[in-house]
Amino acid sequence: MSGFVCEYTPWIALSRVKGLGGVGFKKLAAHFADPTAALSAPASELAQVPGLGKDAIEGLLGFSEWRQADAEMRRILDAGIRIVPFVDSHYPARLRAIADPPPLLYVRGEFSAADERAVAIVGSRSASEYGRRIARSICRGLASVGITVVSGMARGIDGTAHETALDSGGRTIAVLGCGVDRVYPPEHEPLYARICRQGAVISELPLGTRPAAFHFPARNRLISGLSLGVVVVEATEKSGSLITAALALEQNREVFAVPGEVGSSRSRGAHRLIRQGAKLVESADDIVEEIAPQLVRPNSASSPPRGLPHHWGEDRHRVFSLFQERALHIDEVTEMSGLSPAQVSQILLELELQGFLRQLPGKRYAAEQ
Amino acid sequence: MSGFVCEYTPWIALSRVKGLGGVGFKKLAAHFADPTAALSAPASELAQVPGLGKDAIEGLLGFSEWRQADAEMRRILDAGIRIVPFVDSHYPARLRAIADPPPLLYVRGEFSAADERAVAIVGSRSASEYGRRIARSICRGLASVGITVVSGMARGIDGTAHETALDSGGRTIAVLGCGVDRVYPPEHEPLYARICRQGAVISELPLGTRPAAFHFPARNRLISGLSLGVVVVEATEKSGSLITAALALEQNREVFAVPGEVGSSRSRGAHRLIRQGAKLVESADDIVEEIAPQLVRPNSASSPPRGLPHHWGEDRHRVFSLFQERALHIDEVTEMSGLSPAQVSQILLELELQGFLRQLPGKRYAAEQ
Repeated sequence: MSGFVCEYTPWIALSRVKGLGGVGFKKLAAHFADPTAALSAPASELAQVPGLGKDAIEGLLGFSEWRQADAEMRRILDAGIRIVPFVDSHYPARLRAIADPPPLLYVRGEFSAADERAVAIVGSRSASEYGRRIARSICRGLASVGITVVSGMARGIDGTAHETALDSGGRTIAVLGCGVDRVYPPEHEPLYARICRQGAVISELPLGTRPAAFHFPARNRLISGLSLGVVVVEATEKSGSLITAALALEQNREVFAVPGEVGSSRSRGAHRLIRQGAKLVESADDIVEEIAPQLVRPNSASSPPRGLPHHWGEDRHRVFSLFQERALHIDEVTEMSGLSPAQVSQILLELELQGFLRQLPGKRYAAEQ
Repeated sequence: MSGFVCEYTPWIALSRVKGLGGVGFKKLAAHFADPTAALSAPASELAQVPGLGKDAIEGLLGFSEWRQADAEMRRILDAGIRIVPFVDSHYPARLRAIADPPPLLYVRGEFSAADERAVAIVGSRSASEYGRRIARSICRGLASVGITVVSGMARGIDGTAHETALDSGGRTIAVLGCGVDRVYPPEHEPLYARICRQGAVISELPLGTRPAAFHFPARNRLISGLSLGVVVVEATEKSGSLITAALALEQNREVFAVPGEVGSSRSRGAHRLIRQGAKLVESADDIVEEIAPQLVRPNSASSPPRGLPHHWGEDRHRVFSLFQERALHIDEVTEMSGLSPAQVSQILLELELQGFLRQLPGKRYAAEQ
């Protein structure tokens, strides 16, 4: 598949396959080494991908829009937008682990290793001065300990959260429900520009996609997926923030809520969440206390690399044993293990997600200390 | 032991025995039929009471203040104060079941069968207008469904709770940390008078006892002990309300807390409770929903349980009355009745043979329909 304007064109192609969502994509990613392989696989091989739906298989087999995908890739390059496909080392590891990750992210600005420690702050678009004050106080506290603030760049709490993180010298990620080349709401143009310089504005939606309400639930799964936990600051009972909180729970993220006065409609959603088990928080300290166990890398200092669980398959043990001495390129692993590139890709991903390996630049991997 | 001004003089005597607290008293009550028996028992018999402490035994053996006890009884009668000893059918069953119930209660006004359904409202003495507003709203709601409001008659939330219950035509019980013949704080004199007419002012402390801070924790165990649950409305981090909440948990009562704005010192205690597992509540409905299972009388609808023959002894009536709400384990019956295990076994057997109770698996009994 040469002749494309960029090696990532097949990723654009894959993201445009009809009938293929994040869940189906993840199953493909576990089976094929790269999108080109998936897009050129015969029906017989696609049928062997566990759990891949009929619509997705038909979409893959019928895909023919390579020219359009490459033209899109050209527009992306011209606009100075970064593409981060699922297998890229910059693709956030926590997001990669959710059940329905996007095949690729459109990114303005850039991800940092520090974004592994991210917390989402979401809340009402029509926030009260009280809500904004508490959001500011929490974001200042998170920024001061190096935690990236994730939000949706909406009016109200979202905007306040991004702004405060930036003002405090911290990092922030805005996940949009439109293409990253669009600024919504328009008055957030200056904020958008600041986030691009001091963090990242990201979306899974193609360039030019307009903001629409039906994009927001999907967008919200990325907000929670990127984060260790989600803090709901003010939310009415019908707020989209409650959807984000529900997705966060599905993704095994912590859910935090800030209480307010009984009788204020903006506190009702947060109170309901607390009744359902969300943790009541008053400050960044309360949040950090809860996520602290996840901030520490258990294997960091002295302890030798853990062994793999015994019940894990022989292939995984074989691959992992190769890393006892040094870091390896993915092709070396394939060669040394005698496994197929697809198998190796999948095993390396699993080992990375489980914390046994970490990815280095240039498709190289090393054992976690 | 004749010649006393009142049959309850021995109870006054028992309540004045040095070294005997609520826990020791409960052990005595399980062993002896009445206080006179306990106060005249030889050392050898007292030594057989399981768990009774050395100090309590010495206090019982050395007790000689019968004359003073009788004089006190005279003062009580003259003051028109009611004495409700542990075995009295008016002694609240829920309070009887705690680990350290008082041997007797001094009561102004009177208990009602409705007080079985009681909820305590406690909070800051220096309540905000917000706190008072929510306390009023909750108490109105509780009163409207016939739930008795229990509190400590202190300034602030306590006073507001009693007042609102009375204004709403409901019942209320004030538990004092001084003798029931004292009004503290003095400005609550009119409130005190109203409670005596429309509920009860109670204390376990002898007449004339002054209010003192060290009485309050003991008083608080009665507030929670009388109640199905305790609602903390506003509480600083050092509030006595948090002690009440802790006692409520020990007594297996529900603990509820009303949130407020982050940053308000008066909400900090409530927020801490919620973080520790207290249920966040916004209204009486939230509370009723939680305690509803305890409010339902399973036998109420179709056929009311038959009454025992009038000529049957008081003990049998007392035991049988415990089964009006639900099935009970034999140990619960012992605890709630204040009778000895041997007495309880015998009475349960009689009630079963006469067809008033049926035995369930695991030493549990239920009223026959």
